[in-house]
Amino acid sequence: MKLAIFGTGIVGQTFAEALAKKGHTVVIGTRDPAVSKTRADKPFYGEPFSVWYAQHRDIAVATYAEAAAQSEIIFNCTNGAGSLPALEAVGAEALGNKLLIDVTNPLDFSKGMPPSLFVSNTDSLAEQIQRAYPKLRVVKTLNTMNCGLMVNPRSLKDGNHTAFVSGNDAAAKAQVKGYLTEWFGWKGEQVIDLGDITTARGTEQLLPIWLRLFGALNTGNFNFAIVK
Amino acid sequence: MKLAIFGTGIVGQTFAEALAKKGHTVVIGTRDPAVSKTRADKPFYGEPFSVWYAQHRDIAVATYAEAAAQSEIIFNCTNGAGSLPALEAVGAEALGNKLLIDVTNPLDFSKGMPPSLFVSNTDSLAEQIQRAYPKLRVVKTLNTMNCGLMVNPRSLKDGNHTAFVSGNDAAAKAQVKGYLTEWFGWKGEQVIDLGDITTARGTEQLLPIWLRLFGALNTGNFNFAIVK
Repeated sequence: MKLAIFGTGIVGQTFAEALAKKGHTVVIGTRDPAVSKTRADKPFYGEPFSVWYAQHRDIAVATYAEAAAQSEIIFNCTNGAGSLPALEAVGAEALGNKLLIDVTNPLDFSKGMPPSLFVSNTDSLAEQIQRAYPKLRVVKTLNTMNCGLMVNPRSLKDGNHTAFVSGNDAAAKAQVKGYLTEWFGWKGEQVIDLGDITTARGTEQLLPIWLRLFGALNTGNFNFAIVK
Repeated sequence: MKLAIFGTGIVGQTFAEALAKKGHTVVIGTRDPAVSKTRADKPFYGEPFSVWYAQHRDIAVATYAEAAAQSEIIFNCTNGAGSLPALEAVGAEALGNKLLIDVTNPLDFSKGMPPSLFVSNTDSLAEQIQRAYPKLRVVKTLNTMNCGLMVNPRSLKDGNHTAFVSGNDAAAKAQVKGYLTEWFGWKGEQVIDLGDITTARGTEQLLPIWLRLFGALNTGNFNFAIVK
């Protein structure tokens, strides 16, 4: 399939590589491709995009608008604060009723570490996106674990841990659940449909405990499982 | 041991019964014992306190101040909004440096269902309590699962799911971890020390997804496990 990955950070890099390996036509969307391709500053996690890009020249890098125009599905892997500006750069008309798989979290680094959330409790980033683009089929998922696990859940306890999906469009959620199992190896019984897009408040508010567990366990290679 | 349980709702009832069965001297603290003993209105969860009390006459019911005075440890099982008023009724001097095991959540029912949180993100109810009573040894725990599981974790998948502890006093957390394993049967390796009391932001913010899972799974008999 033709897939756009929005964001050049470690999450975008991880999805782009995993999906290209699966044989999909992947294009990374960014604000300014020329700037991204030469960006040498070390991000908080992962490696500079220029270093990664040198090893992945088969993956196209384009503007958000170009990447969206070429693709059936958009993976939103920008940092939380960059999500609405990235979609704005495409525009409502071009976005249409595409499927947006939203894996971002509204992390706010301005109040010290670990980060807090810039939207939470009675609203969520996924809802902000859905409200701004009512026709866009937004499915929130995979925002509750390390990006290595997002695309390779079987690497931890044979995949016996949980992914959540939230969204208003039942068909879109079923489609995403299919991709999670088929493309990444998530076990179907471990993918829990929480309900409409407001349930993303729940998964986005998992980040505060995720970040504390990252500190307490001294690794990001863990996940939540729902035991029932 | 001499244990005070603050709160007459289903969580307080569950702890009082479980701990009395273990042979502890349990006293339930409430604002007005005479009113609580005759309270016949059906709460949102569980049964009216008068009905429960008729079946548990061996368990004392006293004012918050009387209950605290008689006890070495206080379990805070009030509803979230009732926590600070209950402690205020005891007062800082009488509370001293007692151990407070805080299992409450700051649920706000005023904005519709499911409830939101009246404090979250950059603060937590546990921190509010700790700030108000700096000498009190506050340990936040067990606020992330159904009360039946709090006191009987082995009833679900032989206890292979997780409880968290948060608090500023390492000795108090170790003491509480001991009680969780000894009194209720929590597996030691499933009790994760998240760090200081600010980490309660993480566990209190699990409630939004807990409530959505309660809806999606149609049962409260589930828990989070950390798979690592």
